[in-house]
Amino acid sequence: MRLPRLLRRAPLVLVVAAAILAGPSVTATARFDEQGALMRPKAYREWVYVGTPLTPNELNDGEAAFPGFHNVYIDPQSFARYRQTGRFPDGTMIVREFVGISSREGPSGKGYFMGEYTGLQVKLKDAGRFSYEPGNWGYFSFGRRSPVSQTAEVRRTGECAACHLAAADEDTVFTQYYPVLRAARPEPGKRG
Amino acid sequence: MRLPRLLRRAPLVLVVAAAILAGPSVTATARFDEQGALMRPKAYREWVYVGTPLTPNELNDGEAAFPGFHNVYIDPQSFARYRQTGRFPDGTMIVREFVGISSREGPSGKGYFMGEYTGLQVKLKDAGRFSYEPGNWGYFSFGRRSPVSQTAEVRRTGECAACHLAAADEDTVFTQYYPVLRAARPEPGKRG
Repeated sequence: MRLPRLLRRAPLVLVVAAAILAGPSVTATARFDEQGALMRPKAYREWVYVGTPLTPNELNDGEAAFPGFHNVYIDPQSFARYRQTGRFPDGTMIVREFVGISSREGPSGKGYFMGEYTGLQVKLKDAGRFSYEPGNWGYFSFGRRSPVSQTAEVRRTGECAACHLAAADEDTVFTQYYPVLRAARPEPGKRG
Repeated sequence: MRLPRLLRRAPLVLVVAAAILAGPSVTATARFDEQGALMRPKAYREWVYVGTPLTPNELNDGEAAFPGFHNVYIDPQSFARYRQTGRFPDGTMIVREFVGISSREGPSGKGYFMGEYTGLQVKLKDAGRFSYEPGNWGYFSFGRRSPVSQTAEVRRTGECAACHLAAADEDTVFTQYYPVLRAARPEPGKRG
């Protein structure tokens, strides 16, 4: 008896289904071009949002170091691992997207309301590429404007890490300002 | 010849794989209990984040209507439809999670930094349940504290909708403050 073509391919279908269920590998999100520059991650606005610090220019002598809202995301695979282990696995990408202030009053009251995108930065934990960096994190800026660049070179050692090392709560990540991460991490005794 | 059991199940495997690829149905996210109360959605912090209005108490005579940060999310299935059509499909759930202000100064400057969760509200577009409401949106509050309630009754007509009808840009949704939605929606000529 000759098996129908589809049935003969069932093992392949199973492998594909298993791959879909398992999700992409942790390191699949970071891609580099032939010159070694990080390519702008795609679809990061569908990653897991973790929090938004806000530093308006008018509260910083007219010129904040990072004006406006900073929306911060983590790739979903690393978020899942963080939730199990309380640690950021190799391959973790954290995106910081800048958004301007469009209005200081809305229907819900006086305050700050988001306007247009104004820039994008990424930090990537990669022990192979950044073995010389604290926590193996490399820092990248895709620009402080819109549209942002398609690629970014790694910033020099210490340029970004200095503030993170000095003030961030966990592995150079400012989890003290990211309620989603604080709520997700396991108790120390329950870490996988 | 007797087919191996796995091969005989190949059509089922295909159906499962197709269902995984297609994602859950749009209306799968909203669940009601036997008394007709909306059950608190799970995993909404992994939905698509759309923006964060901020209305601090000190800018609102000491008592904002909705103090602090308001993190807003949309369920991913409805986000995918919105990106294709520029409209919120039936079944859309929009979550607004409240976060307190923990600090007014951080390493990136003076401003506002997120603290602890302080409440949760949901609006659900459901033509079957809320045919009498503008845009068929029902509004729910799971509380203005932490932890929030597990279920919520629909709010009375007009209690929440009045402000949304008066001031929101799109189908009673404040897309003018949600850069992710503004960037995702298709041009009018390219809507599916």
